[in-house]
Amino acid sequence: MKPKRFALTPGEPAGIGPDLCLLLASQPQPYPLIAITSRDLLLERAAQLGVVVDLLPVTPQAWPNVPAPANSLYVWDTSLGAPVVTGQLDKANAAFVLQTLTRAGEGCLDGTFAGMITAPVHKGVINESGIAFSGHTEFLADLTHTAQVVMMLATRGLRVALVTTHLPLRDIADAITPERLERVTRILHADLQEKFGIARPRILVCGLNPHAGEGGHLGREEIDIIEPTLERLRSEGMDLRGPLPADTLFTPKYLEHCDAVLAMYHDQGLPVLKYKGFGAAVNITLGLPIIRTSVDHGTALDLAGSGKIDTGSLQVALETAYQMAETHL
Amino acid sequence: MKPKRFALTPGEPAGIGPDLCLLLASQPQPYPLIAITSRDLLLERAAQLGVVVDLLPVTPQAWPNVPAPANSLYVWDTSLGAPVVTGQLDKANAAFVLQTLTRAGEGCLDGTFAGMITAPVHKGVINESGIAFSGHTEFLADLTHTAQVVMMLATRGLRVALVTTHLPLRDIADAITPERLERVTRILHADLQEKFGIARPRILVCGLNPHAGEGGHLGREEIDIIEPTLERLRSEGMDLRGPLPADTLFTPKYLEHCDAVLAMYHDQGLPVLKYKGFGAAVNITLGLPIIRTSVDHGTALDLAGSGKIDTGSLQVALETAYQMAETHL
Repeated sequence: MKPKRFALTPGEPAGIGPDLCLLLASQPQPYPLIAITSRDLLLERAAQLGVVVDLLPVTPQAWPNVPAPANSLYVWDTSLGAPVVTGQLDKANAAFVLQTLTRAGEGCLDGTFAGMITAPVHKGVINESGIAFSGHTEFLADLTHTAQVVMMLATRGLRVALVTTHLPLRDIADAITPERLERVTRILHADLQEKFGIARPRILVCGLNPHAGEGGHLGREEIDIIEPTLERLRSEGMDLRGPLPADTLFTPKYLEHCDAVLAMYHDQGLPVLKYKGFGAAVNITLGLPIIRTSVDHGTALDLAGSGKIDTGSLQVALETAYQMAETHL
Repeated sequence: MKPKRFALTPGEPAGIGPDLCLLLASQPQPYPLIAITSRDLLLERAAQLGVVVDLLPVTPQAWPNVPAPANSLYVWDTSLGAPVVTGQLDKANAAFVLQTLTRAGEGCLDGTFAGMITAPVHKGVINESGIAFSGHTEFLADLTHTAQVVMMLATRGLRVALVTTHLPLRDIADAITPERLERVTRILHADLQEKFGIARPRILVCGLNPHAGEGGHLGREEIDIIEPTLERLRSEGMDLRGPLPADTLFTPKYLEHCDAVLAMYHDQGLPVLKYKGFGAAVNITLGLPIIRTSVDHGTALDLAGSGKIDTGSLQVALETAYQMAETHL
C-alpha cells in the first residue's frame, strides 16, 4: 500500500492560516501532512506567536512517508511575492496563494497527496491583483476539469449539502431546475457512497418554500420540480425522503435516520449546521476527482498573530479528509 | 389586584388538542386555566385515554378565582356542531372551533382572561365548511382590529421573529420593503418591552441574502433597504445589530448577547429555533392588544386518543403566557 500523505494550504498569508498550521503542529498527525507555503512566513509568524515548531523542508524529490514528529511540521517551501505584514492584505501575494493551491491540487491529481485541506483565502485581494477568482471551489473545479461540484458542510453528526450556494435570494427559485437538482443529488449520492463508504445513503431533501409549499398553497416548485425529480431518482433505487419542510426536517426524529440533508439554498441549510457545529464545522467539495476539505471560517485578519484562535474547525477538516481517504481506497 | 385567569382553546376537536388539555390536568397550574370546549368531548376522550380528570364546569356568571385542584380542569362548555369521531375531521364542527376562539379572544379583550393559549386548528376543514380562514393569527387580528401582527417563535433561550411568514420563496425579496421592516421591527421592539419586560431589547437582524449580501455581490437589499431602515430606527435609540449573515448570527458569540433575532423569512429563522427547541417551542403573536401563545405543532389526527403525545410545547406555551401576563401588569 502506498503511504498516504496530505497537503495543507494556509491560504491568505496575512490571515490566520499560518497561525493555524503552527498551532496544529503540537498535535501528532496520523499521516504525513505537508504545509504548502513560505517557510520564511511560518518562521516569522512562529516568532510572533512565541511558539517553537521545527519546520522540516520537503520537496517533490523527497516526500516523507511517515508523520512528522510532535512539534514539527513538513513544509513545501513556496516563494512569496512580497514579505507579509501580519493582518495586512497585499495583492503582490495573490499569485503565491494560487500557486499553493495549484501545487496541492495537482499533487492530488497525480497521486502525491491523498487529499488537500484548505485554510481560508481572501477573494477580494486576489481579484484586485487582476486575477479573476471566485473561490477555492471554482478554482479546483477548473483545475480538475469538473463541470459541477456540490458544496457540503459537515460537523460531527450532521451533513448538509446545497442545491444552490452563493446566489441572491431573489434568484434562487429560478435556479431550482430539474436538471440542477438531479445533477446535485447524483453527485451527493455517489460521493456519500464512494468517499464516505455509505452503501445506501439516506438523504433528506428540503422543500423550497415554507412548509414545503403546503400542497401548492405556498409555492408550486415542490409539486412541479422537486417531487417528480426525486421520484425519478428513487426509481433508480436512491433513498430520498422529501421534500420536507425545513423546520420539521431539522429535528431528531428525522435526522437520526439520515446520512445527509439536501437543502435548496444557503440560509435554509447552514444556520442549523453552524449552530450545531460551531467552531467545528468543515466544508467539503463533492464532485471533484480529488478529496478536498476546508475550514468553515474566514481569514480573520484581525486575529492573525494574536494567538487568540482555536484549531477546532481545521482539526475536523483534517479528520474528515483522513476518513474520506481511508474510505476511498 | 384582580385575579388572573387564562383561556385554553383545544382547537380541532378530532385532533390531539383535547388530549393535551386532559393530560395537562395532572399538573397543577399557578392560575385558573379554563378550557373552552365541549365537556362531552372531553369526557369521551378521557374515557378513550383511560385518564381520570374531574371536569369542573364554569360560566361567565361564576368565574373561578383560584387554580383548579390537581387532576381537575375548568371547562367553559361550548356546544359541538356534531359528535366527534377521534381522528376524523368533520366540517360540521368548524363553527364550533371558531366559537371557542371568539370566546377566548373576546374574554381577553374585556379583561376576563389575562391571556389565551391555543392548541392547533385544522385550516383545511374550516375552509371546506365555507368559512374563509387563514389561521389563528389572522382570525385574532381581525377580532381585535389589529392591522399588523408579527409571528415570533420562542424556546428556552432563543426568540425568533419573522419579517415575512407564509410566502412562496420567490415572493419574499419583493416583500422586504422599508415600510414592512420598520413596522415589524417596531412591533417586536415594543412587545419585548411591554410584554416581556425588557427595558432595552437587543435585537439581532438577519440579512436577506447569503452572507448578508457580501457587500452587494450577492444581492443589494441589505444596502438599499435593510441598513437604511435599521439606521433610522437606531437613531431613535433602538439596539439593533445587523444585517448579519444568518449562518453567523445563530452562534453562541452573537446569541448570548441578544433578546430576539429578527429573521427575514420562515426557513431562515425557524429551522434553528425548532432544532434547538424541539418539542418545547411556542408560537407568540406580537402586535395584538391581547396575550396569545400557541403550541408549535399541528393537529396530529393520527395520534389523537392514542396517549402517545407529550405536553412539552403546550407547557412552554402556558409558561410563556403566564410570564407575559405577569410582566404586562
